[in-house]
Amino acid sequence: MLREAIYHRPKNNWSYAYDRETIHIRVRTKRDDVVKVTLIHGDKYSWSVIGSQKIDMNVISRDHLFDYWHAEVKPTFRRLKYGFKFQSANDTIWLNEQGFHESEPENQNLYFDFPFLNPADVFTPPSWVKDAIFYQIFPERFANGDPSIDPEDAEPWGGEPKPHNFFGGDLQGIIDHLDYLTELGVNAIYFNPLFEAPTNHKYDTIDYLKIDPHFGTNEKMKELVEACHSRGIKVLLDAVFNHSGGRFPPFLDVKENGAESRYADWFHVREFPLEVRDRVPTYDTFAFEAHMPKLNTENAEVQQYLLEVARYWIEEIGVDGWRLDVANEVDHRFWRKFRDVVKAANPEAYILGEIWHDSQPWLAGDQFDAVMNYPLTDAILDYAVKETRDGRQFADLVGYLHAAYPQQAAEVAFNLLGSHDTPRLLTICGEDKRRMKLATVIQFTLSGTPCVYYGDEVGLTGEHDPGCRKCMEWDESKQDRDLFRFFAELIKLRKDHRALRDGTYELLYSESGIQAVAFAREYDCEKFFIALNAGNVDATVVVAAGKASSYEVVFGEA
Amino acid sequence: MLREAIYHRPKNNWSYAYDRETIHIRVRTKRDDVVKVTLIHGDKYSWSVIGSQKIDMNVISRDHLFDYWHAEVKPTFRRLKYGFKFQSANDTIWLNEQGFHESEPENQNLYFDFPFLNPADVFTPPSWVKDAIFYQIFPERFANGDPSIDPEDAEPWGGEPKPHNFFGGDLQGIIDHLDYLTELGVNAIYFNPLFEAPTNHKYDTIDYLKIDPHFGTNEKMKELVEACHSRGIKVLLDAVFNHSGGRFPPFLDVKENGAESRYADWFHVREFPLEVRDRVPTYDTFAFEAHMPKLNTENAEVQQYLLEVARYWIEEIGVDGWRLDVANEVDHRFWRKFRDVVKAANPEAYILGEIWHDSQPWLAGDQFDAVMNYPLTDAILDYAVKETRDGRQFADLVGYLHAAYPQQAAEVAFNLLGSHDTPRLLTICGEDKRRMKLATVIQFTLSGTPCVYYGDEVGLTGEHDPGCRKCMEWDESKQDRDLFRFFAELIKLRKDHRALRDGTYELLYSESGIQAVAFAREYDCEKFFIALNAGNVDATVVVAAGKASSYEVVFGEA
Repeated sequence: MLREAIYHRPKNNWSYAYDRETIHIRVRTKRDDVVKVTLIHGDKYSWSVIGSQKIDMNVISRDHLFDYWHAEVKPTFRRLKYGFKFQSANDTIWLNEQGFHESEPENQNLYFDFPFLNPADVFTPPSWVKDAIFYQIFPERFANGDPSIDPEDAEPWGGEPKPHNFFGGDLQGIIDHLDYLTELGVNAIYFNPLFEAPTNHKYDTIDYLKIDPHFGTNEKMKELVEACHSRGIKVLLDAVFNHSGGRFPPFLDVKENGAESRYADWFHVREFPLEVRDRVPTYDTFAFEAHMPKLNTENAEVQQYLLEVARYWIEEIGVDGWRLDVANEVDHRFWRKFRDVVKAANPEAYILGEIWHDSQPWLAGDQFDAVMNYPLTDAILDYAVKETRDGRQFADLVGYLHAAYPQQAAEVAFNLLGSHDTPRLLTICGEDKRRMKLATVIQFTLSGTPCVYYGDEVGLTGEHDPGCRKCMEWDESKQDRDLFRFFAELIKLRKDHRALRDGTYELLYSESGIQAVAFAREYDCEKFFIALNAGNVDATVVVAAGKASSYEVVFGEA
Repeated sequence: MLREAIYHRPKNNWSYAYDRETIHIRVRTKRDDVVKVTLIHGDKYSWSVIGSQKIDMNVISRDHLFDYWHAEVKPTFRRLKYGFKFQSANDTIWLNEQGFHESEPENQNLYFDFPFLNPADVFTPPSWVKDAIFYQIFPERFANGDPSIDPEDAEPWGGEPKPHNFFGGDLQGIIDHLDYLTELGVNAIYFNPLFEAPTNHKYDTIDYLKIDPHFGTNEKMKELVEACHSRGIKVLLDAVFNHSGGRFPPFLDVKENGAESRYADWFHVREFPLEVRDRVPTYDTFAFEAHMPKLNTENAEVQQYLLEVARYWIEEIGVDGWRLDVANEVDHRFWRKFRDVVKAANPEAYILGEIWHDSQPWLAGDQFDAVMNYPLTDAILDYAVKETRDGRQFADLVGYLHAAYPQQAAEVAFNLLGSHDTPRLLTICGEDKRRMKLATVIQFTLSGTPCVYYGDEVGLTGEHDPGCRKCMEWDESKQDRDLFRFFAELIKLRKDHRALRDGTYELLYSESGIQAVAFAREYDCEKFFIALNAGNVDATVVVAAGKASSYEVVFGEA
């Protein structure tokens, strides 16, 4: 057995409370190296009297190098001491906190410890998120419902999107098309920023408490939220708290008054005055964008302001949560306070962080409910579209991600195939709709919450920003209705079957050099077999139907 | 190269801010498998323009299976993208967040990310702790300075300690012997609980805001703290916040009024009424101790009460920090609030958790400054006293612990060889003073803050509780003065030389089956060589003196 491959360290994705009574324990071994892993566990204060219990662990997933083993325990007194027994064909070893042993260690004090399952520490994402199908709207480009509030230089709907032009999209336009979203079947909307800001993307906020006048008013936003809620659609806003815009009044004050400004500590100023020297601002910014000064979220006044923003839109306007822009560049302490305020305003509010990387430090229950799952985006596109990843490589990354976070985080991962920050899915696919559909089927049949970027469902194309921010196509004759029906059908399938939203995941087939993959999702007595082929040659995959008495082809061809 | 052995996951001990400008990056490889590791790093927003930089990593420690590599970077814009290049005799591979590669990966987006060094998240233990030498006092057994407040049934000083007897130790007794502590040289005291409680150990609090009347008054405590401070001695109190005592008024109220009590939610009640059924209380407790009901630290009133306790003793009485009893069974959310309150009361206050196990989740800067380093206790005793660990096994565990936490946590680890919860050191040593001295030399020459359990320095003996809680011996003719001089000399040596408190650690020699070990501690132009031999046969260890121009034997024999 390869001892160097075996990994367990308490907390994070390795030992955590799944709910108020269940503890999940996981351990990693070299792939195909170990045939059986046993979890040895007991109560630390009665182990010496009652002794330990033993349960088999199961492989929940595997990646290129490792198998991931999992077990769950509901300890009577919410405390757990535990260790592992590993068996291979000709070797048996034990692991406790002291390391490896050739025989079962006796001293229970030296086993791993899950000290106490405190409810306050249980990571509990809102229950509705598992059932959500999101639709992302870039407001300036979705629909123009009120030309009277268009920007002065607004261009005719449908023109070429450029970095700085406007087309007059607004809140009334969205209200006017909610029937369309209902027909499509989505039940949640993620809005790019809506607050007052000079650009078309509005990531450079002037006033966090005010809807941009070209989009509408706060009252109009409340009307929109209520119209959504009456249709069973949740509303997620974009919180750009890492940085403000260059015209944010406190920033203008610091620009003018320097160190004397009462807002001087609201930003991270390296040197006064605020200016750009050799393309580098004298203050911290998002990237090197002079008009996006980084907010000092350690400052008590900044915290008070932003936390009031967080509360206001939930309590007064009724939105259902926040998507946090550049979330990983803001301090953890601020996000913990943010979570307290948001969950106090609405315990079922959803907090989604924009993080493109490994996100474990934000997914322990004290900060975010989920992150934008870009690593999965890459895996799907590499496999289904670019063919730079074969079936085995695809399945390996899915397997890795499946075990990389606590289960409740994996269940609500925000799965997207494109956004305002990437080229359009159909464009990435070289306008090959078959590949687009394949990628989308994967997105909708893996665990995690899928999100459709506005217009993908009717065939919008476009390269990276600004191309991906085209006006929505409302002329049905120019919409790809076949694609629309495909999305609507897939959305319905997912909504109708809990196995697809909340079922177990089991990889059934993947081989190096082969583009076919098969996996299953199962919940209660319903089991879905998903067989994919990203290659151009036919493939036959034989999978065992298990205890199924009958089957039905629900999507695609068999 | 063994890929399965290579481990890096951002945060925790693998990538963290050491101070407001320095980021530490670490990676693990199979022991003796890799000859060179290079850190490739750059700013994520200018990498594509400026490119990356490369620096060599160093092995900071090794254990049974692994080498631990370390590098530090001070990125201009406090952001870091990074990856690793590993070289062995005949193999070169690269690692980024996507996994291993046969050539240097180009896409910097796929490298590891340290998103932003936010000062709020920097783990900063109080600076004085590195320089502290603690002395632990079990108050009932240290000195009786005021017989007028003895418990009614107090026995004559020096009698046999039993689970429930009293000898009259008090605060005045401690004040009377501060000159003794100054002579010994310690500069910090950790007190076992002082608050009103029925037992002699006082871990079953009645009133957290009141000194036990048999110990003195709150005014007397203030006098003690001031007397300590005037001698340069810090004071650490014991916070028993996991559970109260059985006579804590809110608990008595719940016992009497059950679910109707206004304190019903102050505890974790599984079933009313509160009673013990078949030796198991119907409410959560410490272990199964019916008179130690677990406090519900999620309850806002409980939080308010305990946080006021935390503030009161620091702000009103002047104590310098808290040692937290059964710290790992209390929720993380509570400890984060606790840290905020404590650091607001005194930014230099010290928070020390009682955790016997791996403590990474509490040592990220948001909860504790240090934990009681029992794993090191085991390593030292196994090696120096019990000889169940050879030199290599000892050095391996020290090496593991050295890399297991952020450097600032390792620097202030609370290193103890015994306490009120273990047999006395001299007793563990079978009263072999040579072994006791060897163990103590290790304790005082490794990084971390040493703590002497009262009386160890004059030869007190005793088995596990109650034996280890004997009355302090104040008759000099009965004190082991040789041992006292040994401790005083060792304490002075550590206080005089920053290399021993704050120097780098370098293992120089350890071999399987051999009881000799040598390591070095170095700071500026001072370097200590520590050569140990726990065996009964002479050993010769040859170490390179490096750039030293002269040397001196400062302790022991050469």
